[in-house]
Amino acid sequence: MEGVDHLAEERNRAEFDVEEMKIVWAGSRQEFEVSDRMARLVASDAVFRKDNRGILGRKELFKNTLRKAAYQEASKLRFFVDEPAFTDLHWGMFVPAIKGQGTDEQQQKWLPLAYKMQIIGCYAQTELGHGSNVQGLETTATFDHETDEFVIHSPTLTSSKWWPGGLGKISTHAVVYARLVINGKEHGVHGFIVQLRSLDDHLPLPGITVGDIGMKFGNGAYNTMDNGVLRFDHVRIPREQMLQRVLQVTREGKCVESNVPRQLIYGTMVYVRQSIVADASRALSRAVCIATRYSAVQDNLVPRMVIDYKTQQSRLFPLLASAYAFRFVGEWLKWLYTDVTERLQANDFSTLPEAHACTAGLKSLTTSVTADAIEECRKLCGGHGYLFASGLPELFAVYVPACTYEGDNIVLLLQVARFLMKTVSQLPSGKKPVGTTAYMGRAEHLLQCRCNVQKAEDWLNPSVVLEVFEARAARMSVARAQNLGKFANPEEGFAELSPVLVEAAVAHCQLIVVSKFFEKLQQNIPGKGVKEQLQVLCCIYALNILHKHLGDFIATGCISAKQASLANDLLRSLYSKLRPNAIALVDAFNYTDHFLGSILGRYDGNVYPKLYEEAWKDPLNDSVVPDGYQEYIRPLLKQQLRNARL
Amino acid sequence: MEGVDHLAEERNRAEFDVEEMKIVWAGSRQEFEVSDRMARLVASDAVFRKDNRGILGRKELFKNTLRKAAYQEASKLRFFVDEPAFTDLHWGMFVPAIKGQGTDEQQQKWLPLAYKMQIIGCYAQTELGHGSNVQGLETTATFDHETDEFVIHSPTLTSSKWWPGGLGKISTHAVVYARLVINGKEHGVHGFIVQLRSLDDHLPLPGITVGDIGMKFGNGAYNTMDNGVLRFDHVRIPREQMLQRVLQVTREGKCVESNVPRQLIYGTMVYVRQSIVADASRALSRAVCIATRYSAVQDNLVPRMVIDYKTQQSRLFPLLASAYAFRFVGEWLKWLYTDVTERLQANDFSTLPEAHACTAGLKSLTTSVTADAIEECRKLCGGHGYLFASGLPELFAVYVPACTYEGDNIVLLLQVARFLMKTVSQLPSGKKPVGTTAYMGRAEHLLQCRCNVQKAEDWLNPSVVLEVFEARAARMSVARAQNLGKFANPEEGFAELSPVLVEAAVAHCQLIVVSKFFEKLQQNIPGKGVKEQLQVLCCIYALNILHKHLGDFIATGCISAKQASLANDLLRSLYSKLRPNAIALVDAFNYTDHFLGSILGRYDGNVYPKLYEEAWKDPLNDSVVPDGYQEYIRPLLKQQLRNARL
Ligand SMILES: Cc1cc2nc3c(=O)[nH]c(=O)nc-3n(C[C@H](O)[C@H](O)[C@H](O)COP(=O)(O)OP(=O)(O)OC[C@H]3O[C@@H](n4cnc5c(N)ncnc54)[C@H](O)[C@@H]3O)c2cc1C
Ligand SMILES: Cc1cc2nc3c(=O)[nH]c(=O)nc-3n(C[C@H](O)[C@H](O)[C@H](O)COP(=O)(O)OP(=O)(O)OC[C@H]3O[C@@H](n4cnc5c(N)ncnc54)[C@H](O)[C@@H]3O)c2cc1C
Repeated sequence: MEGVDHLAEERNRAEFDVEEMKIVWAGSRQEFEVSDRMARLVASDAVFRKDNRGILGRKELFKNTLRKAAYQEASKLRFFVDEPAFTDLHWGMFVPAIKGQGTDEQQQKWLPLAYKMQIIGCYAQTELGHGSNVQGLETTATFDHETDEFVIHSPTLTSSKWWPGGLGKISTHAVVYARLVINGKEHGVHGFIVQLRSLDDHLPLPGITVGDIGMKFGNGAYNTMDNGVLRFDHVRIPREQMLQRVLQVTREGKCVESNVPRQLIYGTMVYVRQSIVADASRALSRAVCIATRYSAVQDNLVPRMVIDYKTQQSRLFPLLASAYAFRFVGEWLKWLYTDVTERLQANDFSTLPEAHACTAGLKSLTTSVTADAIEECRKLCGGHGYLFASGLPELFAVYVPACTYEGDNIVLLLQVARFLMKTVSQLPSGKKPVGTTAYMGRAEHLLQCRCNVQKAEDWLNPSVVLEVFEARAARMSVARAQNLGKFANPEEGFAELSPVLVEAAVAHCQLIVVSKFFEKLQQNIPGKGVKEQLQVLCCIYALNILHKHLGDFIATGCISAKQASLANDLLRSLYSKLRPNAIALVDAFNYTDHFLGSILGRYDGNVYPKLYEEAWKDPLNDSVVPDGYQEYIRPLLKQQLRNARL
Repeated sequence: MEGVDHLAEERNRAEFDVEEMKIVWAGSRQEFEVSDRMARLVASDAVFRKDNRGILGRKELFKNTLRKAAYQEASKLRFFVDEPAFTDLHWGMFVPAIKGQGTDEQQQKWLPLAYKMQIIGCYAQTELGHGSNVQGLETTATFDHETDEFVIHSPTLTSSKWWPGGLGKISTHAVVYARLVINGKEHGVHGFIVQLRSLDDHLPLPGITVGDIGMKFGNGAYNTMDNGVLRFDHVRIPREQMLQRVLQVTREGKCVESNVPRQLIYGTMVYVRQSIVADASRALSRAVCIATRYSAVQDNLVPRMVIDYKTQQSRLFPLLASAYAFRFVGEWLKWLYTDVTERLQANDFSTLPEAHACTAGLKSLTTSVTADAIEECRKLCGGHGYLFASGLPELFAVYVPACTYEGDNIVLLLQVARFLMKTVSQLPSGKKPVGTTAYMGRAEHLLQCRCNVQKAEDWLNPSVVLEVFEARAARMSVARAQNLGKFANPEEGFAELSPVLVEAAVAHCQLIVVSKFFEKLQQNIPGKGVKEQLQVLCCIYALNILHKHLGDFIATGCISAKQASLANDLLRSLYSKLRPNAIALVDAFNYTDHFLGSILGRYDGNVYPKLYEEAWKDPLNDSVVPDGYQEYIRPLLKQQLRNARL
């Protein structure tokens, strides 16, 4: 059966040019070629094997990851290696923190060392007792006039650093966030570069207690990574090791603010969060690829193709559409980051707050949707989705913390809501909302416009859909703002109304995704049938949201019940339209079987023989009669069990 | 700090009698006392330790479970032992299958052996290629006239039995479902008792290939269980081993139907599914208990109690309310099962279809909600929820297959929808809907009634809420039925409209839960403040559904946008009302720390020191410098790495 493509028939049904769609998905021909080559390299090298993750003990698992990470070039390939490792934090957080918050001299000193990995760093912000509440961090950095040093100290148990990836066993250095104390006076939380381990023997330096925080969700997942705990007992570092692009401490212990605004830190956040959005589309597309292929597996003997059930389609296809939607909004965020960076270099900070709110919101929306979607894809695979070999349990376990790290998703939505409320409150003063909030400038129109959909096909019109989404978002924000106005104390009002404020934020973020998908469709997209498929996907994405959040749309009077029902009719017919293209649309992600790591998602659809083969590899099958039979089962069967213990 | 109750202050705030609530939760004083004693027994016996599950290899994990299961009395304590084991299937599926489908003689022969565990059995229905589609099963049982035997055979790879718990390594017997073939003619799928392993040496009998199917979701979870694969190569069993309560095969090979209707099998399903609903309330309450306690942990130094955030309340409190709601609907289902059993004994099969639809729907609703809720509770605990030590990852991993086994949740909802459509179609003929569909008999009224809520407090009125839920469910079903009527081919229509039919089924099931909660409140419930708390919970449960499914309620004209907004206002004030009672309401579940298996959910709230302590136990902390440093990290830091491999 090897070599047979069980999904060939499905592939033949596609009505568009898959190769062209691959380019669209990758972003450009060049991106496609680089990814394609790297994915194949990783897949073909036994070093990067990952199918044994489920049965490795913690130590073996961890050592295995060190081995993979040791190939220097692997830093570029991390994505395809697909295993959380200390390198993620080194490159993804430690280096950006120095770049974003270090002065030019600091960058010149530390970055070359980090680039060559002569030092390995992590990002130590969260403490055992303090995560989202950064102002609650307890670690102190006290300036010592005598020696011109900072003394880093953990005054309590809850001040122990807790969670930083790469900290537990590997990092030699960390950017540590601590309260700056000078002459007994506090000056807020700042970052400090602290060496943790000797570069000679890797032992923790004096005053430093460091270790791993233990097992996490899943068999493999983040257990390949040494998330760590860290305590300081009066550890001294030179004054120069405070990251001081924004605030400098002089030899005399005076705080001098630089001319760089504090918002600068938003730049780093925009960077990190746009990369999280990109990750979301990858994780989501991966899960969708597995579920779609498995749903189309045809048994030769008993015809069975669950993808033909309309319930299966109504659960699966909106997720497929979301994968594309997130991909394009991620692409746009990448552009936004470049734009923000250029402006920062030109000392233009005007778009930062909006860019910050927008990335915060999109990080929250895309990671929440993706986490739920992976689990839904697992359920879509029935019982087999529950097998480790399906790849979905591990994908879920490794993905879900994205909802928590880099800003808890609810906390982020509250920030977006705050920004929206501010935007609304400034409308009367004539301040023009910019970027993704520009539509608020047309609030007057949006508050009273009426949707004039009269037949199902009217919903195919992008401007109709867009206006409905804008109207819903605007009306929700404005209504919330009005309710806030009823409270004497605005902060109290915000706290009290926070659950519905979060909903307004979600509506705003969904609008962004929809509008960026429509913008993408306005580009010139070559390839037979490619654009048509994307149009179908875009429409499914939008109308599915409309269906799931129907209450919002109807309660705000944006659409009528009749119009909602027409949208549903259209949605059903779009599922039928998408159906023959489903396999090709997931093929366009161009994922190797190695990357997918799923027997159910195999490119060739040869699922059952491979599941069967895989089963026998479990250690439990080493012997026919299991260890424990003699002690526990035989006596039971033979009634020789001591009768009462309890 | 040991012995200090960090949540004491919270407990003092409770406005009701917790001890009385414990009785309500348990069902009766006697139930409470039995559970309480068993939970403590299990918790105090080192045999049942389970905190090490995360770091055990598959073989150790499995052997460990055998050890626990070996205490015969443990069969009663399985719930508190809290580890999936072969005993679950033996008692939960093998025995009930024989009781439900075996003749009196068969029961007399096999049940005593099973009760004494002189044989251990499992339930082998699902095949590698066939789950929900039972009619697609390929295993054959061919009658051999010569020898008066059935020949059990697996004709294809996809006909391999796959998934049965306890099959892989332990079971000596199985109830095997196979297509009955006599003289080349097929007679449907039936159950057969087949011996798999020798009772002397536990080796598989000739013609039998059996093993474990390998790793599943999570570290511990179902990996403690030997879900198995099984193939038959012409295995012979005596004719008497076909379960023949419904259909008998004579010595001559003739099929004789007994006077017991085939629907009898529904009786077993009602039993199994009502127990799954009971499990749902337990799993949900457990997750909620952990998240609630952790949300109320107060740091002595930096005040931080996330339970006071309204967003946290709006996510957590509806889940707390659902735990109670599911508990009460589960209690009612237990009654329903007794009622059904009594009727069956009296040859009254009239209520079976309704009871079957109702349990199928409630199994689907409660397991889906619970699975999602466990993950939401994990997120509610922030980063720490991602630690194995929080107990939530394992609770999720062990719980989610409940959405798939014993009827895939979507497939079950489709069955409910089918029943509802039938009910609606029979209304004109004057047939009175019974039981949980009785409200359909008032369809005429429900299709035109208007909700007259005018201020938030009006939503406190049970009859108002109930009528709104009834109206919504009725209107959704009737509208779907009308749409079905537009299709020439009703089956095609059903398939095409299935996604929205499923929604009507959900609306119906939510109504059942709400109405059973209200019924509970009509009982005499003693104890200071107990009933008041339950009223708050009931109202939160219902109004939260109203909020989440707003589209249904408004689009069908059951309520206005203004009324929805009043419901939201009330919901907010109910959260404030519940807040001081939250800890006591989860204390009422009476779970031991052993059962919860979560550092975050500790009764005494002493979370941080215990998390810190636990971390150091990870094998990775055995040495300060990790294994792998010399090979992979040192050369990296020292730039001695061979430079190009890829
Ligand atoms: C896998 C993983 C890797 C990580 N890596 C790192 C790392 O490398 N470096 C590092 O420094 N940290 C790291 N972290 C920590 C992470 O940043 C924190 O977990 C995160 O900031 C959330 O904080 P918390 O855990 O204290 O949760 P909390 O903030 O305590 O959240 C608990 C609950 O409270 C709610 N909540 C909190 N604040 C508010 C509010 N103001 N309003 C309303 N609701 C609120 C949340 O929504 C949540 O439901 C990592 C975490 C994980 C899981
Ligand atoms: C932990 C675990 C323990 C188990 N224990 C046992 C056991 O002891 N004994 C045993 O015999 N089996 C057992 N099973 C198997 C279980 O009963 C099946 O997995 C279940 O019946 C679902 O079948 P499936 O896996 O083939 O999924 P499928 O039915 O293939 O489902 C895949 C997808 O197709 C959809 N689908 C399927 N049919 C339809 C339809 N008609 N209409 C619309 N959508 C449809 C489903 O909704 C799902 O999204 C176990 C499974 C698990 C995970």
